Amino acid sequence: MPTHPHSPAKESVVDLLGMLAYGELVAFDRQSIDARLAPDLRRRAQLSIMAAAEMRNYQRLVARITELGADPQEAMEPFVQVIDGFHDSTAPRNWLESLVKVYVGDGIADDFFREVATLLDPVDRDLALEVLHNDDHSEFAIAEIKAAIADNPAVTNRLALWARRLVGEALSQAQRVAAEHDSLTMLIVEGTGDLAKVGELIKRLMQAHSERMTTVGLNN
Amino acid sequence: MPTHPHSPAKESVVDLLGMLAYGELVAFDRQSIDARLAPDLRRRAQLSIMAAAEMRNYQRLVARITELGADPQEAMEPFVQVIDGFHDSTAPRNWLESLVKVYVGDGIADDFFREVATLLDPVDRDLALEVLHNDDHSEFAIAEIKAAIADNPAVTNRLALWARRLVGEALSQAQRVAAEHDSLTMLIVEGTGDLAKVGELIKRLMQAHSERMTTVGLNN
Repeated sequence: MPTHPHSPAKESVVDLLGMLAYGELVAFDRQSIDARLAPDLRRRAQLSIMAAAEMRNYQRLVARITELGADPQEAMEPFVQVIDGFHDSTAPRNWLESLVKVYVGDGIADDFFREVATLLDPVDRDLALEVLHNDDHSEFAIAEIKAAIADNPAVTNRLALWARRLVGEALSQAQRVAAEHDSLTMLIVEGTGDLAKVGELIKRLMQAHSERMTTVGLNN
Repeated sequence: MPTHPHSPAKESVVDLLGMLAYGELVAFDRQSIDARLAPDLRRRAQLSIMAAAEMRNYQRLVARITELGADPQEAMEPFVQVIDGFHDSTAPRNWLESLVKVYVGDGIADDFFREVATLLDPVDRDLALEVLHNDDHSEFAIAEIKAAIADNPAVTNRLALWARRLVGEALSQAQRVAAEHDSLTMLIVEGTGDLAKVGELIKRLMQAHSERMTTVGLNN
């Protein structure tokens, strides 16, 4: 008997947490490598600190997967290919691209966490809200991107194009996840109510993304 | 007027903290990359978690450098070449080599922190004792190395040789630091009392290292 009429199946929640946990592990991995692109030690350390924070979130997610009686490694395995695929196709070639990727990626990830939190039971809802990124991370990225554009407006088009490519790749990998993982798709569809609501969710994510682009002057 | 007959000069302390901070930043960088050598996601995450912990120590050290009125980046710069040099000459080629490096490196670093803490004023002494590694890190490395040796005793010689090379490179870079950074050398020499005591300090570090090698079965 479900504890709540809309209580998601444990299997779906483990799938979701497994996807998020592997996402954190790879975000750590890629950001720690991207930190080498920094122009100085202060900035390199800043991105390294942001990378390290992903591992604290990883640990929270894995602890919850274990608590639910599942094996974290098994929960993550199904998402390795798709998440690696996203990052392989979006490896930043310089410091600014790495910052735009962190800014775009963290922003969409946090919005997704907030949306998905409303579909979960209290414990997992709290967890989803705990693993949001600190504001000072996006503030650092915003300041760096704005300063770079102010310094050289010619980078704007290139970075705007890069941001669009990041979102395009993310959507394409998200579609792959939805097609391959029925239980995850059902969690979102049943949680939101119907397929039209899923469309609305994606629309909200894209709207918030667009506002973030305006914030840094990349919505041209 | 010094606050204490043996109170080290602020310049020496900033040098020391700068060296330690850059050491943490690079330990993070290298361990996060070495994590990719792990045979599975669980072990990869474990090394990533250990890497992330280095950034927390980095932040503590940098906060103290700032508190002392110095610029963290300037404090670190003089040690970039020598610390990068150590890591460039000791890049692990596989998972076991990366674990032996973490085990050997963390062990010697922690012993050095403990020794140097006794030479510092209370605030910096506490800091040096706070940035020690968690025991569960070395326990993980010990368990992995012992299991690998039990599984295939043929790796013992190769890993013992690797551990000796790590210590050899570390000593050679330490000599370079001592030769290039008078204020650091003076901190140790004045703090311990005389040059003979410095020799004793190094002897204690090597003795403790030798005991750690015995613990994992690499002291052949």
